[in-house]
Amino acid sequence: MNFIKQFAVKPDKKFNLDKVDPECAELKISKKEARDATAENIEVMRKLQFRMYAENKQSLLVIFQAMDAGGKDGVINSVLGPLNIQGCRVVSFKQPSTLELAHDFLWRAHLAVPRTGEVVVFNRSHYEDVLVTRVHGQVSAGECERRYEHINAFERLLSDRNTRVVKFMLHISKDEQLKRFADRLKEEDKHWKISESDYTEREHWKEYMKAFEDMLNNCSTECAPWFVIPANRKYIRDLAVSDILRRVLENMHTEFPEPTADMKKIKAMARAEAEKAGIKL
Amino acid sequence: MNFIKQFAVKPDKKFNLDKVDPECAELKISKKEARDATAENIEVMRKLQFRMYAENKQSLLVIFQAMDAGGKDGVINSVLGPLNIQGCRVVSFKQPSTLELAHDFLWRAHLAVPRTGEVVVFNRSHYEDVLVTRVHGQVSAGECERRYEHINAFERLLSDRNTRVVKFMLHISKDEQLKRFADRLKEEDKHWKISESDYTEREHWKEYMKAFEDMLNNCSTECAPWFVIPANRKYIRDLAVSDILRRVLENMHTEFPEPTADMKKIKAMARAEAEKAGIKL
Repeated sequence: MNFIKQFAVKPDKKFNLDKVDPECAELKISKKEARDATAENIEVMRKLQFRMYAENKQSLLVIFQAMDAGGKDGVINSVLGPLNIQGCRVVSFKQPSTLELAHDFLWRAHLAVPRTGEVVVFNRSHYEDVLVTRVHGQVSAGECERRYEHINAFERLLSDRNTRVVKFMLHISKDEQLKRFADRLKEEDKHWKISESDYTEREHWKEYMKAFEDMLNNCSTECAPWFVIPANRKYIRDLAVSDILRRVLENMHTEFPEPTADMKKIKAMARAEAEKAGIKL
Repeated sequence: MNFIKQFAVKPDKKFNLDKVDPECAELKISKKEARDATAENIEVMRKLQFRMYAENKQSLLVIFQAMDAGGKDGVINSVLGPLNIQGCRVVSFKQPSTLELAHDFLWRAHLAVPRTGEVVVFNRSHYEDVLVTRVHGQVSAGECERRYEHINAFERLLSDRNTRVVKFMLHISKDEQLKRFADRLKEEDKHWKISESDYTEREHWKEYMKAFEDMLNNCSTECAPWFVIPANRKYIRDLAVSDILRRVLENMHTEFPEPTADMKKIKAMARAEAEKAGIKL
């Protein structure tokens, strides 16, 4: 199955979020099959990440957005966590600081983008500024339209400098969210994470879905596509995200750099050193 | 075995690097035993990392220095790699950029230190500025002395703000380095990493050891100790580093924060929501 084709939001077509089933009931695959395929995708991703790091010419920016308990942390830990930590960095965008608020809304995102060879994961992102702020009336509809354009220009800039930008909306149902909140209540070690607003925000569910849908329709571009991942079942979510990232990395066609040193000369140096030390290599 | 006691460089005692056997022949332990104990240490580290992240009051800075092929990348991948990527970041210090050179030598290190709750790993560090620069005569002995003082003051500042600073010198023998270089020559995918200077730098081995020894004698402090890890055998190296980090994390005595919300009220909200949705939690 090619999840890129299945879950991409096409730039030239009206996208209807209602039509996505968060359960993905149509997909018949056992948990074990999904987990095995995910593990295989991750193995390939690890190899490709190393080659991208070695090549040092391109980079990858992965963005996750979702409703609370949508599985951002989960998918980051299971699919991105196994990558080599030396070339992969996660940036979590929380409430903006005073310094961040003293700048335009893309400033803090720009500071955090990957350098060549690097994978960077945004846990939330600049898209918060057209989602939560919009639902709570902190930005007008007109301002939101302008922000979509700023975002598209920003992501095109990254893309022009060989950064692949891949954006995932993890889509869960309202009932699934409630179940996950209930699970947190059962784990004492997670009570510090819980707040009343988890529940009061649920009253705005429909407005959130509308804000997501508008964002998807305005900001899924050729160079920085959105993917809507049915995320009620975690093993489907992990499979789809790993499949897409594997394909993106494959499509980068990275190559190991040529050696900069003269390998014959190096081998002679190695032999001379070994002789001097009286050891066999 | 308590590797903290065994491998710490004591602030009040002259330290002699010659006396450390990179092979650590005295330690009788099978590879399997060492690997099992390391895996157990890492499991504990993962739990403690999560609690530190949740507590959000303290942080951990881990510094690695070594000769080339000393195993910095290896130990970071095997011992720190399994931590949760969302609270752990690796910073590699390479040749300083023009911007970095336009500042004092601690500037780029300071920019990269951990925020509360975070683990940061320095792959090389501000110590390069009293090692490679000294060996190549770019800083005078007097300047080096001043730098030791600046470093100690800097690390005390971090420690005063609840950052534990733990520093590892991975100590390999000159022959072991040659063997590892030879191994790299056998892997075509790693040829891009190889340069002639790998071999020419070996001529300065003694001066490097002297620079390391002076650094260890001047900069191992109560609040930011150095550990010299015998690193010829990778499984001993990983065991020692994981044992020390586990103990450091244990000694932080972190605690999960109290819930900020009223749990009774939250549970009532959860029940009301479930009833409204007609689902059983």
